[in-house]
Amino acid sequence: MITTANVKNGVNVDQLVETIEHVKAQPELGKFKFRTKNNWITGGHCVSSAKSFYGVCQEDTTREETFTMECDHPNVLLGEDLAPTPAEVVLHALGSCLTGAMAYHAAANGIDIESASSNLEGSCDLQGFLGLDPEVRKGFDGITFKLKVKSDATAEQLENLARFSPVFDMISNPTPISIEIIKE
Amino acid sequence: MITTANVKNGVNVDQLVETIEHVKAQPELGKFKFRTKNNWITGGHCVSSAKSFYGVCQEDTTREETFTMECDHPNVLLGEDLAPTPAEVVLHALGSCLTGAMAYHAAANGIDIESASSNLEGSCDLQGFLGLDPEVRKGFDGITFKLKVKSDATAEQLENLARFSPVFDMISNPTPISIEIIKE
Repeated sequence: MITTANVKNGVNVDQLVETIEHVKAQPELGKFKFRTKNNWITGGHCVSSAKSFYGVCQEDTTREETFTMECDHPNVLLGEDLAPTPAEVVLHALGSCLTGAMAYHAAANGIDIESASSNLEGSCDLQGFLGLDPEVRKGFDGITFKLKVKSDATAEQLENLARFSPVFDMISNPTPISIEIIKE
Repeated sequence: MITTANVKNGVNVDQLVETIEHVKAQPELGKFKFRTKNNWITGGHCVSSAKSFYGVCQEDTTREETFTMECDHPNVLLGEDLAPTPAEVVLHALGSCLTGAMAYHAAANGIDIESASSNLEGSCDLQGFLGLDPEVRKGFDGITFKLKVKSDATAEQLENLARFSPVFDMISNPTPISIEIIKE
């Protein structure tokens, strides 16, 4: 018998179903830890690297590349505009995660996604960051995600699939962050 | 009279003080909107671009470059490992923003930062994303940020400055996200 990989939306559905079964049988396999190292260059200019992660009960040994990411600020925010702002990086992570979650869960449900592209916008008020008004929040007061998608599923079905996004959860619900500062 | 720019931690302090005064006098100047466009490639592989933003009561005209950012997933998460995961991108944004916020607020308070580098880790449980247990959250259940810093200020002072970070606020407090799906 000749078999071909069962791929939908770029996702290997057999591998996805297998992963679900494995995590169901042994929940420890589903625990992941992601990491970055961040180096301050100057002002609001930083460079991060990402390589090691933990998952499936072990430290990963498959990733060969170390990914490098950069942040800076535009001139009006006193930077040199060498890279996107942290706020734009958040929108990138959110848009990618909502879209990827939709594609994975659509694959698991036999739904084809033909194409998808989105626009994200987040609004904020510098009075928060500058400490001028304690009533004004420092981060985005709201984010809009507008996704254009070609698929036979309804918009409502697709939205329910996208809502499985981990980054959507991290931002729309409070995520505890512990800060430890070590003086050198 | 010869004057040199008053720069601390890579931040032009005169421009920073001027910015604070301007926003205090005319709060509308502090309203910013950041944007990204996101294109789905396949599976969990997406590419974002960032260029246009709104701030200081106008659409920006100074940024010349369009920044490109990518997300993918490692093989164990059914990706091709071509780029960092959205979860790692979030850690990059968070580390950069906490560090940049500390550098800016230290500059405004006359505190020197000589060097700074950090390690971030976020843990999650795939049972959430896979929909296996509604009690398990989809995103990180917690993030640790460990910063090594050379400065004369105390660790407590530096932590208070870092906490002005907009991305820290966005993730540690709930940020409303509206989703609109348009079928093409």
